[in-house]
Amino acid sequence: MAANPQFLKYVDDHQDDYIKRLSDAVAIASVSGNLSYVKDVEAMGEYLVQQLTALGATVEKRGIGKHTLEGKEVDLPPVIIGQVGNDPKKKTLLVYGHYDVQPALKEDGWLYPPFELTPDPKGSGKLYGRGSTDDKGPVLGWINVLEAHKNLGIELPVNLKMCFEGMEENGSVNLDKFIESEKDKFFSGVDCMCISDNYWLDTKTPCLTYGLRGINYYEIKINGPDRDLHSGVFGGTVHEPMTDLIALMSKLVTPTGEILVPGVKEMIAPLTDDEKAKFEAIHFAMSDIHGAVGGDVTISNDTVKTLMGRMRNPSLSLHGIEGAFSAPGSKTVIPCQVKGKFSIRLVPNLTVAGVTEHVVKYVKEEFAKLGSKNTLDVYLTHGGEPWIADPNHYSYRAAHKATEAVYGQTPDYTREGGSIPVTLDFANILGLNVLLLPVGRGDDGAHSTNEKIDTSNYINGTKLLGSYMYELAAISKD
Amino acid sequence: MAANPQFLKYVDDHQDDYIKRLSDAVAIASVSGNLSYVKDVEAMGEYLVQQLTALGATVEKRGIGKHTLEGKEVDLPPVIIGQVGNDPKKKTLLVYGHYDVQPALKEDGWLYPPFELTPDPKGSGKLYGRGSTDDKGPVLGWINVLEAHKNLGIELPVNLKMCFEGMEENGSVNLDKFIESEKDKFFSGVDCMCISDNYWLDTKTPCLTYGLRGINYYEIKINGPDRDLHSGVFGGTVHEPMTDLIALMSKLVTPTGEILVPGVKEMIAPLTDDEKAKFEAIHFAMSDIHGAVGGDVTISNDTVKTLMGRMRNPSLSLHGIEGAFSAPGSKTVIPCQVKGKFSIRLVPNLTVAGVTEHVVKYVKEEFAKLGSKNTLDVYLTHGGEPWIADPNHYSYRAAHKATEAVYGQTPDYTREGGSIPVTLDFANILGLNVLLLPVGRGDDGAHSTNEKIDTSNYINGTKLLGSYMYELAAISKD
Repeated sequence: MAANPQFLKYVDDHQDDYIKRLSDAVAIASVSGNLSYVKDVEAMGEYLVQQLTALGATVEKRGIGKHTLEGKEVDLPPVIIGQVGNDPKKKTLLVYGHYDVQPALKEDGWLYPPFELTPDPKGSGKLYGRGSTDDKGPVLGWINVLEAHKNLGIELPVNLKMCFEGMEENGSVNLDKFIESEKDKFFSGVDCMCISDNYWLDTKTPCLTYGLRGINYYEIKINGPDRDLHSGVFGGTVHEPMTDLIALMSKLVTPTGEILVPGVKEMIAPLTDDEKAKFEAIHFAMSDIHGAVGGDVTISNDTVKTLMGRMRNPSLSLHGIEGAFSAPGSKTVIPCQVKGKFSIRLVPNLTVAGVTEHVVKYVKEEFAKLGSKNTLDVYLTHGGEPWIADPNHYSYRAAHKATEAVYGQTPDYTREGGSIPVTLDFANILGLNVLLLPVGRGDDGAHSTNEKIDTSNYINGTKLLGSYMYELAAISKD
Repeated sequence: MAANPQFLKYVDDHQDDYIKRLSDAVAIASVSGNLSYVKDVEAMGEYLVQQLTALGATVEKRGIGKHTLEGKEVDLPPVIIGQVGNDPKKKTLLVYGHYDVQPALKEDGWLYPPFELTPDPKGSGKLYGRGSTDDKGPVLGWINVLEAHKNLGIELPVNLKMCFEGMEENGSVNLDKFIESEKDKFFSGVDCMCISDNYWLDTKTPCLTYGLRGINYYEIKINGPDRDLHSGVFGGTVHEPMTDLIALMSKLVTPTGEILVPGVKEMIAPLTDDEKAKFEAIHFAMSDIHGAVGGDVTISNDTVKTLMGRMRNPSLSLHGIEGAFSAPGSKTVIPCQVKGKFSIRLVPNLTVAGVTEHVVKYVKEEFAKLGSKNTLDVYLTHGGEPWIADPNHYSYRAAHKATEAVYGQTPDYTREGGSIPVTLDFANILGLNVLLLPVGRGDDGAHSTNEKIDTSNYINGTKLLGSYMYELAAISKD
C-alpha cells in the first residue's frame, strides 16, 4: 500500500519546518562521553519528550542507572520510550534511534560551528552539523512523520513503538538490561523493528542493510627477560620477545588477506544464490573504494569480491604492538614484554567462542614450534557476534517497496563490515527481525568533522520512514 | 718492568686523599645533555685544568664549536689536552677520558644524593655517586698517578698525552673533527692509546677489551592507503601495511637468533685458535647472564657460545614499529603507514655498506614476493663500523703484565657487544692500537641509578694505570 498522498504532500510543504526542527536539535550539544555536556544530553532527551507528547504519543523517560564519567558518578541519560496507537488489528513496529552525539569542536577542522546547523552556502543542499545524520536527522524523521499525520488528522497505519537512547556513542551502557527488563512489558507485541543509524554504501543508491560483522579482539603476550635489555650487550644471547611475537603475528594472515588460523575459513556459511544475486546487484565501482582509501591498494579488482571481502567474509587485521619502541627515531632496546594486537571480523557462522578456540590453539602450537624460552599468553580481550537478518522478511519487502516508491530506485541490499552492538541486543533479546534502513549517504561523515546530511536525504528519508509504515501495514507476513 | 714500589706505596698511603679528590669531582654536576648544567660542565673542565697544571702538565683548553641544547645555541664543552714529558727516547702514550656525566636525580631512585660521593654505610667499600665510575674515577686515576710521581719526584716512564672531553654522554659532537685537525699536531708522535671507559665483564676478574661491535640501524617503511582505515569497513578489501611489514620483519631473524639475510653470516671473519682460546679463558658462568636478565631466556646454555653471541657474532634485534597502535587497550585501526625498526650488530668483517647492500636487496626481494600493492622503502638510518684491536700488540702485553702485577690475576680478554664510537675515531683517524683498560666492575651501573665504584677498583685502578705505564715503557715493540 503506497503512502497516503496527503502525507507525502505535507512533507514537501513543510521542508522548512523540518529543517528548523533539525536545527533546534543540533543546537543542543548532547555529547554523551563528556562530563561537561551532561546537562545538554538531558536537555535533548527532554526535547524529544516534549515533541512526542505534543504529537499525541504516550511517552516515558526511564532512568537506567548510573555510570562514571571522568571520575564522577552520574545518571545515565534516560531511555525515552513512546507509543502511538495500540490497535490489535494493526502490526506493531518498533523503531530505535539515539539522541546523543560524538564530541565536536570548531577547531578540529569544522567549516562552521558544529552545533549550528549550517546549509552549504554553495546551495548543494548539504546541512552541516554534529548529529545531523548520526542520529538526530533519522530520529526527527519519525517525529516529522508523526507531526504530518497528527496535523492531517490521519491515523498511523501501524502501532508505533519508539525507543530512543542517549548513550549510543558511549557504549549503550545498560541498554541491554533495559531491553531485557521490558521484554514482556513495553516491548511485548512488537512484530518487527527498524533502525536508521547507518548509511548508504555510496552517495546515490538507497539501501537496506541486513547484516553486520562481529569482532573478536586478541592479544598475544610474550614475556622474556624481567627488564628491557640493551641490544648491544644482549643481542645474540637471549630469546627476544619481539622476534617471537613477530614470528607469530606473521602466521595469522597473508598479505592478500587470507586468514591462516586453521578452522576459521571452514566456519563461513555457504553462499546462497540469493545472497550472491544481492551482492552482484549492489551499485559499486572499484573507483568508490579507491577514492575512499586514496589509491588502488585493493586486494581484488573485482567489485563483488571486494564487497564480499567487506561484508560477508571474515578478515584479520594486525593493529599494533604494545611494549615495543614506537616513537620516531632510533632506540636499540630489546623490549622485555610485548603484546601483539589483532582482530578478526566475524561473519555467519563464525562465533566468538568457536573462533577463539581455533586462535588460541593455533597460536600456542605455533609458539611451541619456535623453540623459545620466553612465555606466551594469548587471549580474547573482547568479542561481539556477527548478525544477519532475513532480507526476504516482510519488513524488508515493505522497505523495498517504500524505497522504490520514494526514490524510484531498487535498493541495494548491503551488510556493514563493522559492528552496531544494539542491533544484536534487540534482535537477540526480543527475537525480532531488525531492518537497518539508512537515511543518510555514505559520505555523511558521521563521527568526523563536517558531519552533514543532505536536505534531500532528510526530506526523502522522512517520506521513506512514513511510506515504509504504509507498506508494512499492507504486506502479507508470508 | 714492574712499577716503581714507591709509587705503589704512595697510592696505598694516599687512599683517603684520592677518595677526597673523587668526592670533589662528583660534587660538580657536569651533566652534558642539559642546558641548566652548562656551567657545571664548564666548571668540571676547569677543575681538570687546575689539577693538571698544579701537577706540572702542559694544559690547554680547546673550544670545538657550538651546538644547540634545548633550542639554545651554546659552546660545546672544551676538550682538555695535557702533556707530561717529551723525551724522544720514551714511548708516548695517549689516554682519553670524559669529564661529563649522565643526568641523575635523587627521586629517580638513588639511595643517596647522586652528586655527593657516599661510601656504603655497610662498609662494602662501594662509593656511590654519578660519574664515580663513568668516567671521573678512571680520569682521576691518571691524575692520582701524576700526583704520586710529582710528589715523589719520580719522572714518568713514558711521555703522557691526555685528551679529556666533556660531551661523551651526548654524542661526542665535533670530537672527530678535533682529532682530525690535531692529527699532526698534538696527537703526533703517539705510539699507542689507552681508554678506560668500559667495565669488567663480571665483578671479580680484570679484563682487557679488544673489540666492539658496530651497529646498523634500519627502517622498513610500508605505505598503503592515504589515511588510517576502520578495520570493520576496510578489513578484507585492502592490502594492509601492517600485514606486509610483519611478514617482512618475520623474515629477518629466527627466534633462535639466526640472521636470515643472505650474505651476512658469510662475512663473519673466521675464528682463529687464538681468539677461541681467549673466549674459552673468560671467567663467565651462565648464572651471570641469567642474573642480569632475570631468568633463563638464553639461546644457548654454553658459556663460550653465549660470549661469542655477544662479542664476536652479529645479532639482529627487532625494536618496534612506528605508526601502528601501541597503547594499552584495543583500537581497531588499519594504520596507513608503518615503519619497522631493527638493527644489526656488526663484527669483523661485516661493514656498514656491505651489510646494507645485502639487507636492502633481500627486503626488496621478499617484499616483491608478497604480491602487495603497497609500497616499500628500506634504508639505513645510521651505521657504525665494528672495531677490533690486536690483543697481542705490545700495549696489550704491557697491560696484561700490569694486571697480573696489581691483581695477581690473568686478565680476561673481552669484547663489548655495544659500540663506543670515540674508540673508532681515535683508532681510525690516528691509526693507533687502542687498549680498552677498564677500571670499574660489571655491576657499577654506569648510566643507572646508584652508579658506584668500589674503593678497591679505584685504588687498584690507579695502580694499574701507573703500572701499565711502566710495563709499556719496558716492553719490546716486537
